[in-house]
Amino acid sequence: MTFADIDTKSINTIRILAIDAIAAANSGHPGAPMGLAPTAHILFNNFLRFNPKNPEWLNRDRFVLSNGHGCMLQYALLHLYGYDYSIDDLKHFRKLNSKTPGHPEAELPGIEVTTGPLGQGISNAVGLAIGQKHFAARFNKPGFDLFNGYTYAIAGDGCLMEGVASEAASIAGHLQLNNLIVFYDDNKITIDGSTEVAFTEDVDARFRSYGWDTIDVSNGNEDLDSIYEAIVKAKQSTNKPTLIKVSTIIGFGSKLQGTHTVHGAPLKADDIAAVKTKWGFNPEKSFDVSQEVYDYYGKTVAKHQQEESAWEKLVEKYIAEFPAEGADLQRRLKGELPLGWEKALPVYKSSDPAVASRKLSEIVLTKIFDEVPELIGGSADLTGSNLTRAPESVDLQPPSTNLGTYAGRYIRYGVREHGMGAIINGLAAHGGIIPYAGTFLNFVSYAAGALRLSALSQHQVIWVGTHDSIGLGEDGPTHQPIETLAHFRAIPNLQVWRPADGNETSAAYYQALTTKHTPSVIALTRQNLPQLEGSSIEKARAGGYTVYTASESPDAIIVSTGSEVSLSIDAAKLLAEKKGLKINVVSLPDWFTFDQQPLDYRLSVLPDGVPILSVEVMSTVGWGKYAHENFGINRFGASGPYKDVYKFFGFTPEGIADKAEKVVEFYKGKSVISPLNRAI
Amino acid sequence: MTFADIDTKSINTIRILAIDAIAAANSGHPGAPMGLAPTAHILFNNFLRFNPKNPEWLNRDRFVLSNGHGCMLQYALLHLYGYDYSIDDLKHFRKLNSKTPGHPEAELPGIEVTTGPLGQGISNAVGLAIGQKHFAARFNKPGFDLFNGYTYAIAGDGCLMEGVASEAASIAGHLQLNNLIVFYDDNKITIDGSTEVAFTEDVDARFRSYGWDTIDVSNGNEDLDSIYEAIVKAKQSTNKPTLIKVSTIIGFGSKLQGTHTVHGAPLKADDIAAVKTKWGFNPEKSFDVSQEVYDYYGKTVAKHQQEESAWEKLVEKYIAEFPAEGADLQRRLKGELPLGWEKALPVYKSSDPAVASRKLSEIVLTKIFDEVPELIGGSADLTGSNLTRAPESVDLQPPSTNLGTYAGRYIRYGVREHGMGAIINGLAAHGGIIPYAGTFLNFVSYAAGALRLSALSQHQVIWVGTHDSIGLGEDGPTHQPIETLAHFRAIPNLQVWRPADGNETSAAYYQALTTKHTPSVIALTRQNLPQLEGSSIEKARAGGYTVYTASESPDAIIVSTGSEVSLSIDAAKLLAEKKGLKINVVSLPDWFTFDQQPLDYRLSVLPDGVPILSVEVMSTVGWGKYAHENFGINRFGASGPYKDVYKFFGFTPEGIADKAEKVVEFYKGKSVISPLNRAI
Repeated sequence: MTFADIDTKSINTIRILAIDAIAAANSGHPGAPMGLAPTAHILFNNFLRFNPKNPEWLNRDRFVLSNGHGCMLQYALLHLYGYDYSIDDLKHFRKLNSKTPGHPEAELPGIEVTTGPLGQGISNAVGLAIGQKHFAARFNKPGFDLFNGYTYAIAGDGCLMEGVASEAASIAGHLQLNNLIVFYDDNKITIDGSTEVAFTEDVDARFRSYGWDTIDVSNGNEDLDSIYEAIVKAKQSTNKPTLIKVSTIIGFGSKLQGTHTVHGAPLKADDIAAVKTKWGFNPEKSFDVSQEVYDYYGKTVAKHQQEESAWEKLVEKYIAEFPAEGADLQRRLKGELPLGWEKALPVYKSSDPAVASRKLSEIVLTKIFDEVPELIGGSADLTGSNLTRAPESVDLQPPSTNLGTYAGRYIRYGVREHGMGAIINGLAAHGGIIPYAGTFLNFVSYAAGALRLSALSQHQVIWVGTHDSIGLGEDGPTHQPIETLAHFRAIPNLQVWRPADGNETSAAYYQALTTKHTPSVIALTRQNLPQLEGSSIEKARAGGYTVYTASESPDAIIVSTGSEVSLSIDAAKLLAEKKGLKINVVSLPDWFTFDQQPLDYRLSVLPDGVPILSVEVMSTVGWGKYAHENFGINRFGASGPYKDVYKFFGFTPEGIADKAEKVVEFYKGKSVISPLNRAI
Repeated sequence: MTFADIDTKSINTIRILAIDAIAAANSGHPGAPMGLAPTAHILFNNFLRFNPKNPEWLNRDRFVLSNGHGCMLQYALLHLYGYDYSIDDLKHFRKLNSKTPGHPEAELPGIEVTTGPLGQGISNAVGLAIGQKHFAARFNKPGFDLFNGYTYAIAGDGCLMEGVASEAASIAGHLQLNNLIVFYDDNKITIDGSTEVAFTEDVDARFRSYGWDTIDVSNGNEDLDSIYEAIVKAKQSTNKPTLIKVSTIIGFGSKLQGTHTVHGAPLKADDIAAVKTKWGFNPEKSFDVSQEVYDYYGKTVAKHQQEESAWEKLVEKYIAEFPAEGADLQRRLKGELPLGWEKALPVYKSSDPAVASRKLSEIVLTKIFDEVPELIGGSADLTGSNLTRAPESVDLQPPSTNLGTYAGRYIRYGVREHGMGAIINGLAAHGGIIPYAGTFLNFVSYAAGALRLSALSQHQVIWVGTHDSIGLGEDGPTHQPIETLAHFRAIPNLQVWRPADGNETSAAYYQALTTKHTPSVIALTRQNLPQLEGSSIEKARAGGYTVYTASESPDAIIVSTGSEVSLSIDAAKLLAEKKGLKINVVSLPDWFTFDQQPLDYRLSVLPDGVPILSVEVMSTVGWGKYAHENFGINRFGASGPYKDVYKFFGFTPEGIADKAEKVVEFYKGKSVISPLNRAI
């Protein structure tokens, strides 16, 4: 391959668009785009398969800019290749409600995943690559190589220092993802200065220890041939992901190149002018793109459009030849669940035996396993505790291990919660896959960085968080969630289910599977829970409902979740019997869903005029939204048999009744407004 | 070195105590203690320097059981060596309020750090080892080798898969911590089965890539000599930490040895009897320890007691010869701050210029840098953004790098927030050090696992969380905290400061430095904040106070924090001027501290009879505790110049005034109880 002047011109156009946009915003990160433009150009123009007119083409290659602060690199490319980004969009870089926010966001055209929080993008890329492997294994047939895409990512020093990336990279090596190619922008500079101050490990050796190939490109600023050859070579790998270490100069071209000053601040006007002059651009003009560059990139796009047309024809033929697989594929592309899948959800009567909700979750997963083939499960090495594996599952493993196949639907993530969280985001971003992942609820917090991005990016992922309270018993306070649900409930666009019994567990899965743009955490017990008389899937699907009615005009309402609902009902019965008090009980398994119900429904559940007491064995933070009084645990838990621990903290029918009685007394004669009735 | 029957007997006694205690609890993890007893015995009896009668001896070696679920190994050893653990304590393993909880907790004798959440312990060990290096560099003089301890840790597969451990290990290699020796219990088994299913990386090669030495012991079950020799060799390292990979059989001795079944469940009675018989113990007896073993271990203790006595004498001589250093050392050992240090805290008048609170924080750190030498700072590669480095700081670096010395007080953590969080826990656990660490507030969440343990373990660590809201502007929603403070406020025993101006920033540091058993997060702005007329260090130290009084009987109270306090005061003034409304404003910079004030004080701030509106540019979750109405942001933020973003979300004097007016209207004529007045 030889490269011509037009390549250099294109590369410099990317660089100049980046510095112009950053100057216009007076904010942004020019260093990475200037250093990485050659790599990105070679990749986009010679390897990456994509169609700007159909960014969602399922067999496209995926590209992730893990160092998302360098996003002007990506926006410039997306504009130049004809994605729906105008020059005006670039001019509005980092402006409020523009199409070019400060970091790339997944809902924008051509952006696979939201990046910026370091280490996430490269880990999402692992998920994308797994998704590609899985689709290939699931759907390809002889003569129908429908899925054969690569995932490319660019990552900087910051991404590679983050533990989440270490976890995901180790999984990628284990899974032998030869379709994953990561460019490491080795520019020797971080915000604090030289990498010598904190990052002196041998990155190549580390990645080889994970089972990756590594290739070095010593001059990433100018040596286009070496970049090209490295990608060719990486694509030849049969059983390893590849790290291509591209040595670059940060801010290449600027007077400040090679220093951390150029990382995160606009170039000065004179510097910009000098850069433009040096590269033959008009220093008087900004956002000035030669038609020649548009045309050059347009040719690449035309080629891809032909490829996509051919692919669409192949899919049509496939559908004719393999109608079952074809129908499944079409359905999944549309994001529709199989018709009637929900009939598989188990329904319980109050006479059914008490069962731990982690086990109820396993029953759901087992029942719907065949019905919903897009479900891809997994656990962070707690499979037997989380009960996340349907018995007929095959592991998703490289076939050479004889432990499974890429068509398998159960991933062994190892003890890597954060990596798992970022990988399921990538799996969801792939399309046609609904990933779920298990760990102890308390350790979902290890993945807080990824979970937040699930919600922000609207990925439909499901966390199965078992051992959800002090009810886990002996493992003690290091493992007992206290703040966890308060934390998750404060994350926008996140369902946080804590089902009280079998029907509510089915409802949680129903909502998690049918709400396409909202992730879910399902909090599940280790201990057994009775099947409630007043529950149903239908009622629980509202997120909250009255599960026990003592009276149409009760003395108080207890609102509770999960394992405390049945205790609260027992408390209500106790108070009726002993004190003649009428206490209704509301189960509120998911705040997010309840909040979306009409106000009149919500007020029918939590009405004016009745004091409301929340009961939950964890932090009371947040309960002010639904209850006047809160009974919870605002300290860390304790190690001991779970019944002893519940008793110690007063979460028994008697203990709850005592609190409820105090609440009734306190509010007697006082006017009480529902917490849902608000001025603003 | 040759080992005798008594060594084997001691090792088997450890194993049998572990399985007896786990059987008595009917809960626990026998696999690790049975596999690791030889390693632990060789380490404790031949290398580890400790005194059971004075577990806090500052020049002791430190031992961390990173796989904390194996804690019966540690409890057995602590009992046998004469720490304050009786046989009865072992019999109450995992019972409520016993001295032997399900995972080791830092407040117990002989336990350096709380472990169990995987990856934390080994990362704490890095912090402990840094603390030892720092104390040696700071205090040792020719002839006075006061500090020369080692830190030993045992870690399992789980710990090494966790990203936090990867981050910390990379830092340890960079810092050339030759005093850190980690035993990797390579037993090939995790909960999901063989490590082949998820953990196939080359661990030794990975650690070498970080700059560690690695040594393999192929038979950790029986080959005591090899374990001994490995430690001897590791201690000879001059500039590298060492990973000793000890191949063991999980549950060694049990019928189930080598399987994951023996990881986390008690052995069956017949298995226990068989193990005892095989090793010459009486199968009829439980918790049966031969006096011979006590005596053997007692000899080791006697030796250490002599060492400590000699050390105490050396310290006395040191104090005489180096009175300044000696006084500093004694003070720090007592955990007392230097007399009058707080006089260095800056005080502001309302006529002083507006300053970003991250800058106010830098001013505090700079002013107290010389006064409080136990402060050891750092940042996760955001030094110039967090403003965490006092100008006169020297970096804590290996001297050979010429970038600093071990006596330096500023750590370059790299982009490794979780590792940083675990390392500062280790630094705090070392004693005589108060660590602080900076990153963007949003990315403190990456360290949620470590932060939770700071609070649980009562480590005095300080997080400097800058860019604390949508006020960071252009970086956008990936970087703008929404749920973060709700999350942290729900963690027990955690101060979460969000100061509104200079005086409040000084107050935050005052409280963070003087509250010895509570970690702090200090949330700080990127944007400038005016100095408030009504603030003072004294008032802010209460955690909450009335900062602006329009009237003794106001129409409403606005309660706010940080950057929204001055906006709220402006709103109050606007409402007075335009609508004749009397609105007082309360600043509530730290809920934790405010909650500890007497109720009458708190009710004087948030009294009955007045509607209260909270104003904060993030999730309203939690504010129900202090306010009837909440104005916040229950969605993700937006990228744009910060003033545009504030305006977009309505956080302007006008926007806040509008909400406050609605609140006044709504509650007119209604009886209003203070949210602090509760039934329970």
